[in-house]
Amino acid sequence: MAYKEFSNQEIIDMDTDYRIQLINSLGGFKSICLIGTKNQKGQTNLGLFNSVFHVGSAPALYGFVCRPADRERHTLENILETKNYTINQVQKSFYQKAHQASAKYPREVSEFNQVKLTEEYIGQLAAPFVQESTVKFALELEETHSLLNKNTIIIGRVVHVAVQENLLNEKGFIQLDQSDTITGSGCDAYYQTQYLERLPYARPENEL
Amino acid sequence: MAYKEFSNQEIIDMDTDYRIQLINSLGGFKSICLIGTKNQKGQTNLGLFNSVFHVGSAPALYGFVCRPADRERHTLENILETKNYTINQVQKSFYQKAHQASAKYPREVSEFNQVKLTEEYIGQLAAPFVQESTVKFALELEETHSLLNKNTIIIGRVVHVAVQENLLNEKGFIQLDQSDTITGSGCDAYYQTQYLERLPYARPENEL
Repeated sequence: MAYKEFSNQEIIDMDTDYRIQLINSLGGFKSICLIGTKNQKGQTNLGLFNSVFHVGSAPALYGFVCRPADRERHTLENILETKNYTINQVQKSFYQKAHQASAKYPREVSEFNQVKLTEEYIGQLAAPFVQESTVKFALELEETHSLLNKNTIIIGRVVHVAVQENLLNEKGFIQLDQSDTITGSGCDAYYQTQYLERLPYARPENEL
Repeated sequence: MAYKEFSNQEIIDMDTDYRIQLINSLGGFKSICLIGTKNQKGQTNLGLFNSVFHVGSAPALYGFVCRPADRERHTLENILETKNYTINQVQKSFYQKAHQASAKYPREVSEFNQVKLTEEYIGQLAAPFVQESTVKFALELEETHSLLNKNTIIIGRVVHVAVQENLLNEKGFIQLDQSDTITGSGCDAYYQTQYLERLPYARPENEL
């Protein structure tokens, strides 16, 4: 099968929209999560992110990428202000609402209201969860890293977990296919998944 | 539906294996990619990573997380040494081989040989691609960030792209479902995907 190739110079010279589509598609499937925050004035915010990544389990750490703070970035501002946020997996039943949460609403407008998802509060945790989400967790900001393109990586520690009971097996594994959690690619494409298998820990002596 | 919840203290006190499973499952579906490198002695290496994330398209940047350098990390060592690497999406036809590439083979053993994937070289690019992969790209190291848990985030600039022609639409979007690119969750679960839809750019005035 023939390949289409793009050199370094072709990537640099590429039409902007084409490059956005192409480069966003290269890394394979993405986590699609809603991040919930509330600022010190009590204004809630919900943002859609496709760059959430696991950093470690002891301590339990997750990261994600925020775009440059050269315009209003409510999620980033709220996390820097309060140190608290929630990450909520997106399921098939509400991915269209989740996508709409990526619209640039003014600061005083809550995406929860606009896209008709429900704020949920657990115990003393300050940041709002998405009630509709079947797998969600709260984090406390640990550190930020500024990148060469002015993006920021936010690293947070997991301080609370809520998982729909039937998805969790006896060893702590969450059966995401049974939750209808979706995945994404590019900037705007969504997919459901079908379980293939879990593979045993890979050791050099294993047979293929 | 009932939720199982875990408090901060319960997460800290959790059985190690349970915590690894649980925390790894929280972020939703993951990119599954093989990273190809070659050290200055000419020894090739192939590692499986599930934390590849898009950072930006101008410049075209991707990141991924490397575990602590407290033991041999061949991918990390080779990238720091040569600045060059490839990222290769994993398709259904070879995900079991890709998984086996995560075994801890000695430095002088190439995972390409062990798991029977084929080294491919494009033009003057030094790092090996995975010939079997339908979507792959080469990067040059731009910067590294040390995290509080001693992991390292590697940020690289995309310097070459190769995509199987039939997957690429006229606007630069890659139809990953048609490529049988797989996704993962937790440490060891693999899934195929089924396309739902692409959604239009979200604007505040859009109707849900």
